Amino acid sequence: MPLLTRITGPRDLDRLSLEELDQLAQEIRTFLVEAVSKTGGHLGPNLGVVELTIALHRVFDSPRDKVLFDTGHQSYVHKLLTGRQDFSRLKMKGGLSGYPAQSESEHDVIENSHASTVLGWADGIAKANEIQGLDRHVAAVIGDGALTGGMAWEALNNIAAAKDRPLVIVVNDNERSYAPTIGGLANHLATLRTTDGYERFLARGKDLLERTPVVGRPLYDTLHGAKKGLKDFIAPQGMFEDLGLKYVGPIDGHDIEALESALTRAKRFGGPVIVHCLTEKGRGYQPALADEADRFHAVGKIHPDTGLPISTAGADWTSVFGEEMVRLGEERADIVAITAAMLQPVGLDKFAKRFPERVYDVGIAEQHGAVSAAGLAHGGLHPVFAVYATFLNRAFDQVLMDVALHRCGVTFVLDRAGVTGTDGASHNGMWDMSILQVVPGLRLAAPRDADQVRAQLREAVAVDDAPTVVRFSKGAVGPAVPAVGRVGGMDVLREPGTGNPDVLLVSVGALAPMCLEVADLLDKQGITTTVVDPRWVKPVDEAMAPLAERHRVVVTVEDNSRVGGVGSAIAQALRDAGVDVPLRDFGIPPRFLDHASRAEVLAEIGLTAPDIARQVTGLVAKLDGRYDRSGAEAVEATRD
Amino acid sequence: MPLLTRITGPRDLDRLSLEELDQLAQEIRTFLVEAVSKTGGHLGPNLGVVELTIALHRVFDSPRDKVLFDTGHQSYVHKLLTGRQDFSRLKMKGGLSGYPAQSESEHDVIENSHASTVLGWADGIAKANEIQGLDRHVAAVIGDGALTGGMAWEALNNIAAAKDRPLVIVVNDNERSYAPTIGGLANHLATLRTTDGYERFLARGKDLLERTPVVGRPLYDTLHGAKKGLKDFIAPQGMFEDLGLKYVGPIDGHDIEALESALTRAKRFGGPVIVHCLTEKGRGYQPALADEADRFHAVGKIHPDTGLPISTAGADWTSVFGEEMVRLGEERADIVAITAAMLQPVGLDKFAKRFPERVYDVGIAEQHGAVSAAGLAHGGLHPVFAVYATFLNRAFDQVLMDVALHRCGVTFVLDRAGVTGTDGASHNGMWDMSILQVVPGLRLAAPRDADQVRAQLREAVAVDDAPTVVRFSKGAVGPAVPAVGRVGGMDVLREPGTGNPDVLLVSVGALAPMCLEVADLLDKQGITTTVVDPRWVKPVDEAMAPLAERHRVVVTVEDNSRVGGVGSAIAQALRDAGVDVPLRDFGIPPRFLDHASRAEVLAEIGLTAPDIARQVTGLVAKLDGRYDRSGAEAVEATRD
Repeated sequence: MPLLTRITGPRDLDRLSLEELDQLAQEIRTFLVEAVSKTGGHLGPNLGVVELTIALHRVFDSPRDKVLFDTGHQSYVHKLLTGRQDFSRLKMKGGLSGYPAQSESEHDVIENSHASTVLGWADGIAKANEIQGLDRHVAAVIGDGALTGGMAWEALNNIAAAKDRPLVIVVNDNERSYAPTIGGLANHLATLRTTDGYERFLARGKDLLERTPVVGRPLYDTLHGAKKGLKDFIAPQGMFEDLGLKYVGPIDGHDIEALESALTRAKRFGGPVIVHCLTEKGRGYQPALADEADRFHAVGKIHPDTGLPISTAGADWTSVFGEEMVRLGEERADIVAITAAMLQPVGLDKFAKRFPERVYDVGIAEQHGAVSAAGLAHGGLHPVFAVYATFLNRAFDQVLMDVALHRCGVTFVLDRAGVTGTDGASHNGMWDMSILQVVPGLRLAAPRDADQVRAQLREAVAVDDAPTVVRFSKGAVGPAVPAVGRVGGMDVLREPGTGNPDVLLVSVGALAPMCLEVADLLDKQGITTTVVDPRWVKPVDEAMAPLAERHRVVVTVEDNSRVGGVGSAIAQALRDAGVDVPLRDFGIPPRFLDHASRAEVLAEIGLTAPDIARQVTGLVAKLDGRYDRSGAEAVEATRD
Repeated sequence: MPLLTRITGPRDLDRLSLEELDQLAQEIRTFLVEAVSKTGGHLGPNLGVVELTIALHRVFDSPRDKVLFDTGHQSYVHKLLTGRQDFSRLKMKGGLSGYPAQSESEHDVIENSHASTVLGWADGIAKANEIQGLDRHVAAVIGDGALTGGMAWEALNNIAAAKDRPLVIVVNDNERSYAPTIGGLANHLATLRTTDGYERFLARGKDLLERTPVVGRPLYDTLHGAKKGLKDFIAPQGMFEDLGLKYVGPIDGHDIEALESALTRAKRFGGPVIVHCLTEKGRGYQPALADEADRFHAVGKIHPDTGLPISTAGADWTSVFGEEMVRLGEERADIVAITAAMLQPVGLDKFAKRFPERVYDVGIAEQHGAVSAAGLAHGGLHPVFAVYATFLNRAFDQVLMDVALHRCGVTFVLDRAGVTGTDGASHNGMWDMSILQVVPGLRLAAPRDADQVRAQLREAVAVDDAPTVVRFSKGAVGPAVPAVGRVGGMDVLREPGTGNPDVLLVSVGALAPMCLEVADLLDKQGITTTVVDPRWVKPVDEAMAPLAERHRVVVTVEDNSRVGGVGSAIAQALRDAGVDVPLRDFGIPPRFLDHASRAEVLAEIGLTAPDIARQVTGLVAKLDGRYDRSGAEAVEATRD
């Protein structure tokens, strides 16, 4: 890598010739395939933006100018050009984040991996520059897929409102986000991609138009008089210029010279400009290009030559859900599925193959996923909207005001719930069991194993007058955890043995095996424990309060924010029932979590069997009057 | 009202002649001015859609076909035509809702008053019709203002994806929502409004174009060959047709015959169509037309002839905030303001007049309001985004992932927080103090009076590394409630007198006077009470747990959902501190609230001083062993 290793910052690019820049691009591709093969990561998106990122850093002077990336997973090239070339611990604890991170570099701004945000950020920064009289530029890179998100539209409408406020919007058009982009916008971009362009048409026809009279004056003037100039007519950039955004393109997104020329023109324009760049996801790497499903959007560890995965995990939560959906689809004609541009990642690909007419990919548009689900339910169907837990935040208002208020039977399936780890703060699904608590009528299931995913999904789609939610973790599903009894609607996972039990341990979802381990550890301390899995964590089971009353302390464990979560809901239910048994709630502390493996994160936040057992021991000792100082200190340490 | 009183349902319109329909329209206008003058309500919007609603119900066969209204406040005419003509208790308890309500009529679907939802609902219902092979139509009415919302874009993109799925989108273009619509879309609609139209151009020029050769073939063919047909070029409907939506218009929205003709064409088209109707908000009522600020968007009781308000309330929360913002703007050049199309309703009009360059109306686009605020803060300014509490739900993900994750100093001012009453379920601001609890680093203030609004707003804008929130109620602000002491950062509103106090009463925001009344009532029962106002309810003050420990019971009272609210947060803080003093939390039960006055709603849900005092008395009696059966029963009754 003779050139790449000499790049310590963007300005080192200034000295390179076009030939050297092309060579640099090749070095970067080689680097990405080698490095990401070893660690896993977002390979396809980054292979597609090599030249584009080089051109951006040639034309704009970061960090004085802001170069902003939407969704952030395509920032590896940006990292390489801004002094970060050690990818050996990418996405691992202490290593580079898989997204931009302000703590890593002054060249990074947006850390958030939720899509369609960049234009809003850019609008805000451009306004701040304007108000403060700062002569700085803002370039915002957004994929065609992310343009389907409502935030992008809101931003475009605002950006277009100020004709004199400079802002360069780079549309990284690879005809897909995860999957191919669908809808009216995609069709319009396709039209733009295939046009001749204004310049070529001019060479052929403008002179003639100027000489041709129509209705008494030259046709060219007539065209101008009709509100739209010749350019709009010939090169159908339509929509963007209709909104008031200058359009430049389409540009070959792998031609550095063309990119630099277009970006330079856009930068000098003095107002909002869209630069439409055509790129190829997975560019230059045959295994990625051959993968039509998602072009190696995000891979695990792979063989760099073949692209084949190094290890294949066992059954995961996603596929358990996906297979059960197919069975449900066969049994019930009224079940339809919704995805927000993530058909395969959420496990709906099998359902789509079997029932292509009964699945809707709404684009990166969680709001529309939820509100159109309300309409589908009102119209007599039962929609199942499968979405990553963290992305449901986007549709909170629609879950509340469209689905719940209107008593619609819609099932939300939240994948990647809880600590997901390596994708960092914005990918953890740690909010859903808190914010959804406030939604009247909503029922929320947290299945603990594959059998429960299947069973609870069936229970969820049987509800036709309220929203239901089924949330589960990321990755491999653990072994079955059998129930040994039932109290109300709750599964008893472990009976306390003889005598009056000390602890009621409420285990939520995938943490069941860990909770059983806690009980074993408590057993060794002579503390008797009942372990129950409520299965449906909202509403709190009516049997909970009477059961709690038979114990000396209640302990809840959930893979969700401690704040306002299942523990808080149970505590409130006990208060309302006048049951004042002490309760301690374990969960994720109210802070953003740095990237690391799930196990590392859980250890760091004290969600491990030994940690919990130690604290519960201390608590019971305190109740006994056998005050255990080390236990009390452990309890102290969990406050956050 | 000879014609109106004969209309018992939409099909009664079929028999009327065009002249009679015009007469009916006049009767309806007279009815609306008379009726709404007496009750208050959304007068301006309904005066604008009289003819449009008549035409819709002539062309579509509701409820078999679905006629859907966005935001719902413009559904009065629809109510009049569907058998609901008793407006005497409009928005009052037991009277007609100010929005559509499924419980009122089979002709109503969307009850939600949050904007921009209708296209998503329509898309879902149209899909359900298609899957079930139902030959039914869907017409969705959306204002030009609501088109600026991201949900509208997401829906348009999806609707356009299916060329053969019928759906009629009626754009009710009055150039404003609350205030004039701003941005790229508004400019585009303005272009559409002023165009000649395709038909008129055809009469002039098509023949000639067909005979004129350009580059060797007729110009007409050349135009077609360039991807855009003549029609797109002459009538610049550009954007919508670019997306794949057939465009019909512009139509005079007060010409019933023209409306019927356009809607009938659209209904027969067999795919998605936009019908662009030009209407005048406040049509036919001079006082409304003369009001440039908001055209009588929503009025209180008024004199029907003059439009002047019957009574003027005292200072309200909104204007206290608005005036303090002007002072802050004078002191600090870095303070900027954001509104989502509600400059006047949120009290930013004075700030805008004084600092026009420092206020941003982003459209009905709460997501953009929040994310662009993150950008503004990153760029060195301190944005204050003033928004109704219920509408912040739309921007939850942006508050969390853009503002909080990036440690941006942004202040959210939530107006109309708590029970607002007459606007019904979707206007109550009862969710914010729950869902915002999970946002790391966010600080939340609930000022109890005007002085505290001013003081806490100042404290909020002094924070530059985290989101701050200031939330207050709707309507008149009560008298000042002075502090008699301070514990930590909390104001003591009432000392318990001598001896060990029984109850720590935590009063949140505007409920302070009521909480003091509770304390007086408890006093009479011999129960001593400390009343504190935490001022900042998130994070929980560090002095709370030690203070709680000195009492026998903690009672929290908040004008917010009980679930996950301030009471739950305090309960968790006490648990974490090992303080197991019994706690009871009073707030809004987890269900949607029907429309009624604020006082009626509070009484219904038990948020009154006598109700709370009775329950606390029962609780203290239970702790004393003096078990009071009636008190215990009262506690039972609050479970929900």
